[in-house]
Amino acid sequence: MAHAFAYGEDVLLVEEGKGRTFLVRLEPGMEFHSHRGTIAHDGIAGQVEGATVLSHLGRPFLAFRPRIGDRMFKVKRRTQIVYPKDAGWIVLSLDLRPGARVVEMGTGSGAFTILLGQLVGPTGRIYTFDQSAEFLENALANIARAGYADRVEAGVLTAGEPFPVEDVDAVFLDLPTPWEAVPAAWAALAPGRPLALIVPTAEQLKESVRALHEAGFALIETVEVMERPILVREREGVRPSERMTAFTGYLASARKRLPWSPPGG
Amino acid sequence: MAHAFAYGEDVLLVEEGKGRTFLVRLEPGMEFHSHRGTIAHDGIAGQVEGATVLSHLGRPFLAFRPRIGDRMFKVKRRTQIVYPKDAGWIVLSLDLRPGARVVEMGTGSGAFTILLGQLVGPTGRIYTFDQSAEFLENALANIARAGYADRVEAGVLTAGEPFPVEDVDAVFLDLPTPWEAVPAAWAALAPGRPLALIVPTAEQLKESVRALHEAGFALIETVEVMERPILVREREGVRPSERMTAFTGYLASARKRLPWSPPGG
Amino acid sequence: MAHAFAYGEDVLLVEEGKGRTFLVRLEPGMEFHSHRGTIAHDGIAGQVEGATVLSHLGRPFLAFRPRIGDRMFKVKRRTQIVYPKDAGWIVLSLDLRPGARVVEMGTGSGAFTILLGQLVGPTGRIYTFDQSAEFLENALANIARAGYADRVEAGVLTAGEPFPVEDVDAVFLDLPTPWEAVPAAWAALAPGRPLALIVPTAEQLKESVRALHEAGFALIETVEVMERPILVREREGVRPSERMTAFTGYLASARKRLPWSPPGG
Amino acid sequence: MAHAFAYGEDVLLVEEGKGRTFLVRLEPGMEFHSHRGTIAHDGIAGQVEGATVLSHLGRPFLAFRPRIGDRMFKVKRRTQIVYPKDAGWIVLSLDLRPGARVVEMGTGSGAFTILLGQLVGPTGRIYTFDQSAEFLENALANIARAGYADRVEAGVLTAGEPFPVEDVDAVFLDLPTPWEAVPAAWAALAPGRPLALIVPTAEQLKESVRALHEAGFALIETVEVMERPILVREREGVRPSERMTAFTGYLASARKRLPWSPPGG
Repeated sequence: MAHAFAYGEDVLLVEEGKGRTFLVRLEPGMEFHSHRGTIAHDGIAGQVEGATVLSHLGRPFLAFRPRIGDRMFKVKRRTQIVYPKDAGWIVLSLDLRPGARVVEMGTGSGAFTILLGQLVGPTGRIYTFDQSAEFLENALANIARAGYADRVEAGVLTAGEPFPVEDVDAVFLDLPTPWEAVPAAWAALAPGRPLALIVPTAEQLKESVRALHEAGFALIETVEVMERPILVREREGVRPSERMTAFTGYLASARKRLPWSPPGG
Repeated sequence: MAHAFAYGEDVLLVEEGKGRTFLVRLEPGMEFHSHRGTIAHDGIAGQVEGATVLSHLGRPFLAFRPRIGDRMFKVKRRTQIVYPKDAGWIVLSLDLRPGARVVEMGTGSGAFTILLGQLVGPTGRIYTFDQSAEFLENALANIARAGYADRVEAGVLTAGEPFPVEDVDAVFLDLPTPWEAVPAAWAALAPGRPLALIVPTAEQLKESVRALHEAGFALIETVEVMERPILVREREGVRPSERMTAFTGYLASARKRLPWSPPGG
Repeated sequence: MAHAFAYGEDVLLVEEGKGRTFLVRLEPGMEFHSHRGTIAHDGIAGQVEGATVLSHLGRPFLAFRPRIGDRMFKVKRRTQIVYPKDAGWIVLSLDLRPGARVVEMGTGSGAFTILLGQLVGPTGRIYTFDQSAEFLENALANIARAGYADRVEAGVLTAGEPFPVEDVDAVFLDLPTPWEAVPAAWAALAPGRPLALIVPTAEQLKESVRALHEAGFALIETVEVMERPILVREREGVRPSERMTAFTGYLASARKRLPWSPPGG
Repeated sequence: MAHAFAYGEDVLLVEEGKGRTFLVRLEPGMEFHSHRGTIAHDGIAGQVEGATVLSHLGRPFLAFRPRIGDRMFKVKRRTQIVYPKDAGWIVLSLDLRPGARVVEMGTGSGAFTILLGQLVGPTGRIYTFDQSAEFLENALANIARAGYADRVEAGVLTAGEPFPVEDVDAVFLDLPTPWEAVPAAWAALAPGRPLALIVPTAEQLKESVRALHEAGFALIETVEVMERPILVREREGVRPSERMTAFTGYLASARKRLPWSPPGG
């Protein structure tokens, strides 16, 4: 059964029509302020998801629970985040499932950690590392807000240091020098299991692929993913949007191969 | 701990170098045949994932457990399947997580059903429907092979009929006339919860968006996702591939809004 | 020999480094004003193209003759213009060459008329029509400024009316309802010669293709052209730009086929 | 007036419906052979462009004069050719017009030389160079067949050698190491005039841009151009093609700036 919004919960408020969105944590006696007027949190708590609430100016807002993509975009950002279009590719590459144990190197703002946490569920485990204690602190606050602190372990780690875990189901690298972390990824992964990484430039992609080859990874794939908004208007007709986010990163995935040399080779 | 390949399990065999892949179910005494030679299943069982096995001609093959994307591409196809690039976007749109209850209308070959099954896990539930009993039979065999029969319920249903479930967490529509199933989707969804759909043409997208509006869905988004392979070669350098899959479908997502009319409107 | 900038000529002034550009007609005693300072036209006249001139604040500007793309972007706009990325495709489709006689229906702001005028040269002829006398007046001023008034004839014409020319080498349609002008295009074209058109939506493309078939055009091609800026930075590396113009129109081309029916058909 | 096909002329024969195309030089008494039957050249000569001719099996073919894009695709290839989608961008970047004098380094198969020849017309001049005498020979045959031998001068030249021309209106570089030819391009160009180049990889683009900066070029632009076929079908609807040519090269353009140093710099 649909349960009503409760205090302590995050609500995504969406302006009717125009579509600007706000992520609001419900607290007794608090108010949400926007240029379209004020809404008392007490008027949202108890409502069912999908309801319409009015500001004191009579302007309608839709109230939804945030989806995972909303959460990723609404984290307090200290860094570039992984975009949903890339996140979808990575999720499939990492072969995620409930209960999986996953390493993330480069916590950043924690947006992708939240996605990982949602998908492995309460029985899974995310080990996330960052070189910056300051970033980690911010990320952990974002992760806690999303409700996934129970399944996330975080630590400060420098690229090149070994990961303090083993036999993990997947590794994701999101840092400026992923090639430095590739040997640690190989060591931490269970045999055969996948790694994925994202980098902004062609040079970094090349350096990463070289490191993957050297470490003994196989099935190396490299792609970029583009997402183009489509405008669908009853009268004007259908056409792609005039503007789009053209590029957010090169993606790579690979699988841990056990050492092997050609016989007599 | 990494567990060895067992009889009854699916193994992805990958040709060294060239990368052709084969999905093989291990059975005692059986043999895998390819133009690069024969491999006894008994020589694969007991190996660890990521190992290299040799054909009787001495040609190496890598042995991996199939990832979800491999499974999707390797289903026995009776229909067009949802591509991984689109699947990633849909997964995020549907806000999937362990334990979720999801409706899929248009089972097709079951490739996307398998992905849904993996992500909702053993505590989740996928209700999948198709107009064709013949497609369903094939899809159920594919789903069973992937090991997710325990969490999937399937049934024959015509677009326009109500879904025999309620309060579900997400609905995915993959059929030629999704607009006919939109009212049933609205009725089956828990308040606020998401729907996603895929269609091949601009006209179908327009008709679908119209139906979403009429049924009371909000936050309607429409996109297309492109994935371009990147070639990374040590000597020649980095560049996009010359060929790509340019288009596989228009995607839409939306959320169930509760009925509301402007005051005095 | 390179000839110096003369009074009455257009100069493209480009800010050093940042790259903002200004199209300036040189006149004795006049000044160019920008937030980076003032430049006397008299200090530009007599310079050679490619020279650097300083503002009174000592800020450098590069002085170039405008290329055709600069001219197209710098017209005084009353309408959407044809973008260079699309213009390149159209130029090849229309098989342009010196001396060609070309019809353009939908003069708009005259940006594409200027390109046509440059490519057919002083021995060619552009017949351009628009439904709006007001647009035509603005376009003719733009065309005159580009120096191509000698080869352009313009007139007010409504879509559906016959073109007052015949045996032309190419026809380009850029109007909201190109299908209404397709029969006139067929009548005006020399046998076998090409037509091209641009439209913003899928519905308009479909309607246009239908009209092309009905009028007896053959070799109908339909495409969209995307141009993505690439960032090349010595230190950061190479990657596509994060933003791009994602869509500016669907393009079609076709050739005039002579009436023919299958024998006994 | 439309003039009829004459002996010695090239005709583009297009299969009705399916669209396979053949470039045929008309000669008295000769025959064109295809799997759809035989057509006597004598039955094509004297026809008007756009006419339909029947094979001896009664199968219809359309007869057109080749457009420039057809000619480019139909050259006898010894090398990769410049694709029309890129050619359009280059044409605009080079600011081509009747009478222009243009250098091309990297004649290859001559496809782009033919385009240059068509656009500069009989009063223009194309100076084209290649390191391979063998490629040049093939290219000159292609150029002659297109009818533009009158305006093309060709020579063997190694990248790094000065171009034996000066004050040219534009330079186009299409060779594996364009950076080696950049100083020669700068020397040959008239002040302010444009250069364009095409390269296959990110590394080559970076090296080229570095050379352009060092040689004193300004207004450097770098892009890639994508062309996606759109399928327009009356019944099924409109959608992009499933397959496309995803990448054919990175493009750069720039303009010759006269030497200048910041005062006191």
